Amino acid sequence: MGREQTLAGRLLAEHLVAGRLEPGTEIGLRVDQTLTQDATGTLVMQELEALGLDRARTELSVQYVDHNLLQADEKNAEDHAYLRSACRRFGLWFSKAGNGVSHPTHMERFGVPGKSLAGSDSHTCAAGALGMLAVGVGGLEVALAIAGEPLYLRMPEIWGVRLCSELPPWVSAKDVVLEMLRRHGVSGGRHRIIEYHGPGLACLSAMDRHVLANMGAELGATATVFPADEAIRAFLRAEGREHDFRDLRAGRDASYDIEDEIDLSTVEPLVAKPSSPGNVVPVREVSGTPVGQVVIGSSANPGFRDFAVAAATVRGRQTADSVSFDVNPTSRQILVELARSGHLTDLVAAGARVHQAGCLGCIGMGQAPAPGTNSLRTFPRNFPGRSGTADDSVWLCSPETAAVSALTGVLTDPRDYATVHHLAHPRVSGPARSAADPRVFTTPLPEDEALREELVKGPNVAGLPDFDPLPDEIEGPVLLKAGDDVSTDEISPAGARALPYRSNIPKLAEFTFTRIDEDYPERAADSPAHFVVAGENYGQGSSREHAAITARYLGLRVVLARSFARIHWQNLVNFGVLPLEFAEPADSEKIRRDDVLSVSGLRRLAETGEFTVRNQTRGEEYRTRHQLSPRQVDVLLAGGRIPQLARALH
Amino acid sequence: MGREQTLAGRLLAEHLVAGRLEPGTEIGLRVDQTLTQDATGTLVMQELEALGLDRARTELSVQYVDHNLLQADEKNAEDHAYLRSACRRFGLWFSKAGNGVSHPTHMERFGVPGKSLAGSDSHTCAAGALGMLAVGVGGLEVALAIAGEPLYLRMPEIWGVRLCSELPPWVSAKDVVLEMLRRHGVSGGRHRIIEYHGPGLACLSAMDRHVLANMGAELGATATVFPADEAIRAFLRAEGREHDFRDLRAGRDASYDIEDEIDLSTVEPLVAKPSSPGNVVPVREVSGTPVGQVVIGSSANPGFRDFAVAAATVRGRQTADSVSFDVNPTSRQILVELARSGHLTDLVAAGARVHQAGCLGCIGMGQAPAPGTNSLRTFPRNFPGRSGTADDSVWLCSPETAAVSALTGVLTDPRDYATVHHLAHPRVSGPARSAADPRVFTTPLPEDEALREELVKGPNVAGLPDFDPLPDEIEGPVLLKAGDDVSTDEISPAGARALPYRSNIPKLAEFTFTRIDEDYPERAADSPAHFVVAGENYGQGSSREHAAITARYLGLRVVLARSFARIHWQNLVNFGVLPLEFAEPADSEKIRRDDVLSVSGLRRLAETGEFTVRNQTRGEEYRTRHQLSPRQVDVLLAGGRIPQLARALH
Repeated sequence: MGREQTLAGRLLAEHLVAGRLEPGTEIGLRVDQTLTQDATGTLVMQELEALGLDRARTELSVQYVDHNLLQADEKNAEDHAYLRSACRRFGLWFSKAGNGVSHPTHMERFGVPGKSLAGSDSHTCAAGALGMLAVGVGGLEVALAIAGEPLYLRMPEIWGVRLCSELPPWVSAKDVVLEMLRRHGVSGGRHRIIEYHGPGLACLSAMDRHVLANMGAELGATATVFPADEAIRAFLRAEGREHDFRDLRAGRDASYDIEDEIDLSTVEPLVAKPSSPGNVVPVREVSGTPVGQVVIGSSANPGFRDFAVAAATVRGRQTADSVSFDVNPTSRQILVELARSGHLTDLVAAGARVHQAGCLGCIGMGQAPAPGTNSLRTFPRNFPGRSGTADDSVWLCSPETAAVSALTGVLTDPRDYATVHHLAHPRVSGPARSAADPRVFTTPLPEDEALREELVKGPNVAGLPDFDPLPDEIEGPVLLKAGDDVSTDEISPAGARALPYRSNIPKLAEFTFTRIDEDYPERAADSPAHFVVAGENYGQGSSREHAAITARYLGLRVVLARSFARIHWQNLVNFGVLPLEFAEPADSEKIRRDDVLSVSGLRRLAETGEFTVRNQTRGEEYRTRHQLSPRQVDVLLAGGRIPQLARALH
Repeated sequence: MGREQTLAGRLLAEHLVAGRLEPGTEIGLRVDQTLTQDATGTLVMQELEALGLDRARTELSVQYVDHNLLQADEKNAEDHAYLRSACRRFGLWFSKAGNGVSHPTHMERFGVPGKSLAGSDSHTCAAGALGMLAVGVGGLEVALAIAGEPLYLRMPEIWGVRLCSELPPWVSAKDVVLEMLRRHGVSGGRHRIIEYHGPGLACLSAMDRHVLANMGAELGATATVFPADEAIRAFLRAEGREHDFRDLRAGRDASYDIEDEIDLSTVEPLVAKPSSPGNVVPVREVSGTPVGQVVIGSSANPGFRDFAVAAATVRGRQTADSVSFDVNPTSRQILVELARSGHLTDLVAAGARVHQAGCLGCIGMGQAPAPGTNSLRTFPRNFPGRSGTADDSVWLCSPETAAVSALTGVLTDPRDYATVHHLAHPRVSGPARSAADPRVFTTPLPEDEALREELVKGPNVAGLPDFDPLPDEIEGPVLLKAGDDVSTDEISPAGARALPYRSNIPKLAEFTFTRIDEDYPERAADSPAHFVVAGENYGQGSSREHAAITARYLGLRVVLARSFARIHWQNLVNFGVLPLEFAEPADSEKIRRDDVLSVSGLRRLAETGEFTVRNQTRGEEYRTRHQLSPRQVDVLLAGGRIPQLARALH
């Protein structure tokens, strides 16, 4: 079978515990490793409590603290203390604040080719760079994986992308993934695993591959995989972990469900315009646009090389005084390496503001740009308002484009700057031996000690709300009518105002949908149940399950959309919200906000995939369908996975 | 005259333009330099606009951006853009975000022995380390100084503190100023200039002296001065500015109004317990207290040496995993030096979280500690709640004590740690040639260009409110009854929630006094005029004039206190609030919240220094007095200095 000879197919087969590798059907996978970060992890730890777990059953589970580092008041530090105590209690590794962004840090310290990884962060897929089967999912999925349960997915198609030739000067990995987004848009990868292969891989280091694997999330892909080849061996050797290397590639007879090719020599510097990672154009098409802020770092350009190239570009020069040049180191280790190598000095001397290692502005946790200015970032996402600034204007690009634009104060193609200033594209590689120091990670306590640990819960760590089973009939108003590509940032905003409440659902619920409709929470209070209607790719972006829980908490029972993004679709089911797709996409146009809809016969969810939704206001009917597996039907009928498990336990 | 032979006396005489050097009388001083920071500077720039200023008339005026760096939303970045545009318009230097805390940065780049400096930051006095006459004042005083007006002060007494012998191992400058606070408390320096002299100076570098001069603010002193001697020459040489050196010392016949001595060899590691810089005890008395956070940096320990000693102490070790070890570089230059010298690497490798250069948690702008944990900081202040955490528990200490406590996780005397671990006190000095780079500062525009500049004002930069003249009679309730040492942090909180509104008085006013009385702004709305009654040293701490303006905006017309801190007393007058002192201190005990007070005949403020305040609720009368100069009386009668100037202009 050609599909099973692909690397993705091999990794899936190796971890398959339920179902068959038939695209569109549900499969269950064994989870070897998990990662959680603080923004999603506090709920995961509360879910472990709710499950009554004694000790993690994975090979390795790591809790990172990388999102909510600002500590404008006590809430974030309180959560960090709670997470640390939960790691001690449940036998998890703890990576403290300052160790860095989960994805590059996990890759440096814990990633192992061939292992599966489930993470409560949509960019978990970045670990595919190492030849891992790495999938971002909702927090509850991770909690269950920690408890030893399989991870259930809709079996994706395998999308082979052959890379040939090599990258020209001033073009780098970020431009390659932007090229993918230019070609395929933000839902081009839905229900697919992207598998990169071909001779072009030779010019991409492990961390370059991380850039592509990471932003597979922006393509909507279930996962991205790269072979574990000599580049990966070299990476693990530098990390002092060559013993973790395992050679992994596609078989000779591999054939892909979809075939694609990129000639790297034709890729040019690209930029995603506001406010979608899919709005990609060549930098030259928009060059000269003034920028007020330039930020380098984030999980989408996390490597030593990404900072070092920027440093070598600005070295001895001054960034424009109209520009805030923000440097966001992605891991403690890389910060040490940048300090040792002198690159950090060059960045600071050129005018940089250096921030603590973590996610920073990528999650709206600092460095919100001034109103009316363009912010140019090497980040993965530029959804509206995600930066923390209302009506923001965020552009995404490579470190090369970012660095020269910081110097000129306007969006600049690095090739044009290089020509004028006779600058060669800096070619740097990381140290042969990295600055890895395992001591900065806190190892799990021995089981007998762990069982005696107390959870440290401050006043802002609230319990999980209780949800009732799915009723047979739901009737209620459409409280929100949205277009395509609504992101979870718009459903449940991150950022410095909302995120500190991530352990407190009733409080966080007050922010639900307020980015696109300020009064939504208020209107929701007026009706016991309500609907949301949307277009394509509903719920793209971050994996945060808060986007499902808070809306459910406010009474959302059904989302009617043309299509759903994978993680949010799973999260809706996990928290008892019924996701229905229009059979006739055009029907979505007929519904208006405040129309009263109803759907009945829901207790027969297992027997039929189709439901008729009645619009009582307009006297219309719409055919819809769900794509739920029998397992998911059971979850929904129970009102969500936690009530289902709670009932099973008692 | 012995007083005039003191260095302080000489500096005062050299700048005197009004009055005589007679303690207690008002003097006017020529201002050579000014500094403003962003938290206070946006009002200063609005005041320059209100004054109709064409161009700064000082020798040098610098606007720093160091306080509000978090940018959780667009407001802080908006203010930075406004400040930059105002510097371009009015001919000021602009020091952009990331250049560092105003005080050490000013000292490195702009400070000149013998010059006078007025700054809208209470720690402006730090520049006294260079032999400057440096005074922290309210923003309006600085605006007027920029406009060429003299700075008016109550002539202080000169307090000579002779330092002899030298510091023992593991004891440093911070311990010396904590010893001053242990002896004299937070109002021991009121209406005094502290002049350090004697052979003990030989062991204190320019930046060590900065530590002592800086925390003169915590003693309540008007200023602190050090001689400009060989240590200062060496400092300026390392900065590439030896040409700015001028030898300045007290004369042979100097005699001080108050004489004091510290034998440095007897000083031991000290710590200020929560929640006052005056709660000083030996570290050994409280050793073993668990700490959850350790922060090094801030204007109170800003020097290369302060970070380098901490780095050398933690080098090769790991800080306790229960501790958040936060490093807050104080200037871009020092960050470069720490990166170059390897000290930064050592800090990061030992577990530090490195933040952008700026004020950070000292002003509650990040790194708020978890509730219920002790935070140990090398900062100057630990007023209640200033960290951003309600009911915080902040301790102040030296970098030596901070570093060893970060390793052990409990408050530890560095001598005890050194004994157990056979560790020698690291002796480090800065590089012979600093990493100074003048290009990171934006020079003033030429006048013709400057006049064409437009101010960049976003929606959060509101205008200044208009205040009416002082009426002849004021009657109203006591809305707040406070104790001793109320700080401006309690009157108008800083921190990440409130500070972004610093350019918006109506909005900021909603935070007034809420740290000590949540309902104050609401109650104030119910009465047209009201009183506040307090104990000793009312208004200590930060210079922010917001503490006067927002309360005045809410209707505060009279503060009755046992005594006032200097800067806030001036700010009250400048914004039309009458400060009255009890003739009988015990009377303050008789008044209760909500008592209705009245005072009349206020238009005769010039003719009498005494007023009787009637307590209508209790049928009592209290004798009070003001200590206003005739100039201040005019200001108050006009309703404040801006209405006074506005009327003079029209």
